[in-house]
Amino acid sequence: MKVIKGRKDLAIFLQNLDHSVIYRNDLEQYPTDAETAATVIFNAFMSGDIAGKSVVDLGTGNGLFAIGAHVLGAETVVGIDVDSEQVRIARKNGEGTGIKFLQMDVSEVTGHFDTVIMNPPFGSVVKGADRPFMEKALEIGNKIYAIHNLKGIEFVSKFYGKNATVLRIERLGIRVPRIYAHHTSDYSVIPSVFFELKSRISSQLTTK
Amino acid sequence: MKVIKGRKDLAIFLQNLDHSVIYRNDLEQYPTDAETAATVIFNAFMSGDIAGKSVVDLGTGNGLFAIGAHVLGAETVVGIDVDSEQVRIARKNGEGTGIKFLQMDVSEVTGHFDTVIMNPPFGSVVKGADRPFMEKALEIGNKIYAIHNLKGIEFVSKFYGKNATVLRIERLGIRVPRIYAHHTSDYSVIPSVFFELKSRISSQLTTK
Repeated sequence: MKVIKGRKDLAIFLQNLDHSVIYRNDLEQYPTDAETAATVIFNAFMSGDIAGKSVVDLGTGNGLFAIGAHVLGAETVVGIDVDSEQVRIARKNGEGTGIKFLQMDVSEVTGHFDTVIMNPPFGSVVKGADRPFMEKALEIGNKIYAIHNLKGIEFVSKFYGKNATVLRIERLGIRVPRIYAHHTSDYSVIPSVFFELKSRISSQLTTK
Repeated sequence: MKVIKGRKDLAIFLQNLDHSVIYRNDLEQYPTDAETAATVIFNAFMSGDIAGKSVVDLGTGNGLFAIGAHVLGAETVVGIDVDSEQVRIARKNGEGTGIKFLQMDVSEVTGHFDTVIMNPPFGSVVKGADRPFMEKALEIGNKIYAIHNLKGIEFVSKFYGKNATVLRIERLGIRVPRIYAHHTSDYSVIPSVFFELKSRISSQLTTK
């Protein structure tokens, strides 16, 4: 297994994973930048929610979060994506890790996990596309780490707040390369927020 | 009026305010470090909650937050402290600013303010000492910026979450000089959290 010495080291490792060459606008697919992914995974690790834990990555794409969780010592990791092409790439990136990459809709996921990590669609192309991710995370996860668009912060914070204790909300700038025609520069930075949450729904289901 | 060019500049300015030489342990008094104060005030400023706004500082001590809000363009500023010695020092620091420094218990404060900024007692000496501050802030403020001990984050987040939308929770290290006998080094860093909130109670009272 790859030995990771710090957040920076993790970012470089994740940067080198294979990416899709086709991104589906209807799914708001875009590559999560490795710096952002490393920051989120490291925060989860520092809070004790990665090493030795069961982790699920909802909307895994090329497997970035799932593989990051694996190299930081997660006991079991599952990555979910609705797009079979993304699952194919994630499986290739995660070869030999034992991570289960499954092609399914997020709403079909069952089970209980210590930790959910996700960068769901922001719901800016398909209105409300983030909702099934948020609902599922609260249902199946004890701790949740999620990235959302800063624009929706009031809605997202209220939505989570009903069924979770909010432990952290920090501002992030996600670096997105030009992949769609409506992008006007090579890179743009999307003002985003990173949430750390403790679900109150799922904790009723577990004995921990 | 002092011209402030940035967060760093503000920290240096606040660093030079007069401090009390006596700190009351029963009130968990300690000087808020200028770096932390500048970070919190600047965040509030960037969110549009200082310039041209009415601001109240609950537990103002030497007037740090109140004076910081004034120099960044707050329209009216009120600073509250229960300790007359702190109010005396704050008035001296704030001479010529027009800031009203009032000696009263936080529970006696009335009115409505655009913005509350506060570094309340952490409730680690007198259990529950932070509660009247949190309740009052939700009652009188539209937006709230507050510092709390990391240890109490779950309780504080839940408490605020019932009556406010949580917009930000970031980790901070507050640098506290040795002022009490139970402190064992010259400086210690207290793991803390900074909250940005939008009250749902007070917004029912205002037409905004």
